[in-house]
Amino acid sequence: MTHRVYNFGAGPTMLPTTVMEKVQAEWLDYQGMGVSVIEISHRSPEFKAVLNEAIQLFRKLTNLPENYQVLFMHGGANLQWSALPLNLVQRSSTRKVQYYETGIFAKRAHKEATRYANVDIVASSADTNFDRIPPFDPERVDADAAYFHITGNNTIYGTRWHQYPDTGEVPLVVDTTSDILSWVVDFSKIGVMYASLQKNLGPSGVAIVIVRDDLLGQALPETPSLLNYEICAKDNSLTNTNNTFAIYVAKLMLEWIEAQGGVTAFEALNKRKSAVLYDVIDQSDFYQAVAHPDHRSDMNVPFNLPNNNALLEPFLKESEAAGLYALKGHRSVGGLRASIYNAMPMEGVEALAVFMQEFEKKYR
Amino acid sequence: MTHRVYNFGAGPTMLPTTVMEKVQAEWLDYQGMGVSVIEISHRSPEFKAVLNEAIQLFRKLTNLPENYQVLFMHGGANLQWSALPLNLVQRSSTRKVQYYETGIFAKRAHKEATRYANVDIVASSADTNFDRIPPFDPERVDADAAYFHITGNNTIYGTRWHQYPDTGEVPLVVDTTSDILSWVVDFSKIGVMYASLQKNLGPSGVAIVIVRDDLLGQALPETPSLLNYEICAKDNSLTNTNNTFAIYVAKLMLEWIEAQGGVTAFEALNKRKSAVLYDVIDQSDFYQAVAHPDHRSDMNVPFNLPNNNALLEPFLKESEAAGLYALKGHRSVGGLRASIYNAMPMEGVEALAVFMQEFEKKYR
Repeated sequence: MTHRVYNFGAGPTMLPTTVMEKVQAEWLDYQGMGVSVIEISHRSPEFKAVLNEAIQLFRKLTNLPENYQVLFMHGGANLQWSALPLNLVQRSSTRKVQYYETGIFAKRAHKEATRYANVDIVASSADTNFDRIPPFDPERVDADAAYFHITGNNTIYGTRWHQYPDTGEVPLVVDTTSDILSWVVDFSKIGVMYASLQKNLGPSGVAIVIVRDDLLGQALPETPSLLNYEICAKDNSLTNTNNTFAIYVAKLMLEWIEAQGGVTAFEALNKRKSAVLYDVIDQSDFYQAVAHPDHRSDMNVPFNLPNNNALLEPFLKESEAAGLYALKGHRSVGGLRASIYNAMPMEGVEALAVFMQEFEKKYR
Repeated sequence: MTHRVYNFGAGPTMLPTTVMEKVQAEWLDYQGMGVSVIEISHRSPEFKAVLNEAIQLFRKLTNLPENYQVLFMHGGANLQWSALPLNLVQRSSTRKVQYYETGIFAKRAHKEATRYANVDIVASSADTNFDRIPPFDPERVDADAAYFHITGNNTIYGTRWHQYPDTGEVPLVVDTTSDILSWVVDFSKIGVMYASLQKNLGPSGVAIVIVRDDLLGQALPETPSLLNYEICAKDNSLTNTNNTFAIYVAKLMLEWIEAQGGVTAFEALNKRKSAVLYDVIDQSDFYQAVAHPDHRSDMNVPFNLPNNNALLEPFLKESEAAGLYALKGHRSVGGLRASIYNAMPMEGVEALAVFMQEFEKKYR
């Protein structure tokens, strides 16, 4: 029996053991070809089948409307922070773009946009250490803005948008890196959606990007070809050699999500999983949740220990010994964080809950 | 016994079976952690050790001078075609950059540069279908050029620079995607070197980039952060979540190269390997080499069959049946191509040579 722990890392993080075992089983000899899937051309019929199946499965699982492209682009969400203004800023006569600031990654996103655009910070929760999503005021949407950007789930602070804002004619752009395919989203309300793969969909290095057709073809001339949505769409994500390994694993992940009942099933399961942890935290005065109760994420559950996390080291040491891996919070906020993406089974969450209760009894 | 064939693909292509088996063996449980190396944080001590060992091994294997950075950057060589002018064009008062045009990838490189620079095509072998490297004239080097770009090995046409040109004070930039670590290079003659990993160093999605220190810090303001050499150097390739899988496999490849005797050993072996194939071709009037004899690559051996490759289909069908995979030439030139990177053992080359001789006897 292979040694596997429950991995609460924020990303790159655990993939389902069944998916990992499939990769391992066909590692040296993919479909009887005598080579690995990572050893074949990105333009071979076998790899194109992988890519196209991944795209079709994503469309099916999300009920994606016909007028959206599904792209796999290099560099993860971070490179999309550059690609987004490069592709869309020309839609605004004043090069205006609007951003919601709900964490460090949201800040880095708008900071990168300042290279190309006039950034308007619509709202920020910096003054409460990003413990919430500031209320949305439709009046703040500028009809001339090229787009309106939000971070759907804030990995570090464990906050999320439960419902996306209605930005009218201004395209809504959502970074869904840490909650993609964890809940049912109505894509027809979105202009662009992007997500790194390495939390809910596979290994690191690539972003999946969903773009509405009418937003293609407006890139600035200085846009590198590989950051241009229209070129990527035209070439079906094969302008150059894409990250074939990541796309292959993403395909396996999408198959696994479908086999488990699809996104609806995961939305229900994820609510139950996060509730187990929030219940332990709320029923105790030992643990304190980081996020405001109205904005809690189902993917990332950051929490603190008493007395400025004085017991952090024993908690990390003992949890790791109990097979509960990577519970340390992000370096910018400290404390603890349990990331419980789709791949984390209920059993892992329950094991953590039991550990937390026993730790409290021992140390309170 | 696992079924493995000899893989002559141009890339992504074969990795040594011993490396692939090591990946497979530690796939579910890396160093007893109970998680895969692709399931851990890019900022974990375990992954940083992988990254730093890869960098140190590359330095050691290449005798890299101290004043060079070793970077792992997203998107492969193709994204470097954009990064290069973005980082260096400001060195020229006239935004001039110089390119040698020795194939389609060389053309795509300078085409991308036109977004940011005034491109001077120093020489081109387009009129002979890129079958050679045009002679180098030191007088053509413009002292005001930001850099002078060559493609070290031309994958499609099987041509190479046997010796790099001396461009004096103008930084020489070399795309070594298809021959990195296949022969001994004096890096002190180079300003920037870049290569996709997926031919001699691992999986696809990432480029290794070598930059001389004095060329950092000159990027245009519109350079995306992840394409900026200085930022990447400062952050030790961890500005965002890098492609951890590719870097891990690159580390294993570097260890394997070292264990086989290092770059000197591979240079000698690669010469012997390519000689086996060129001998079969030259001693026959059945096969014709694509590349001019003075400029032949040791990595890619493209060749044609008689009568405009009329026998292409039987050659491909019978070679594949003989366990010789992916010998079809690039779609832009047709015919056949044997890519014989470091990972291709002499046994594979000899098996192909025997097959070619028998095929000739059968069909001539």
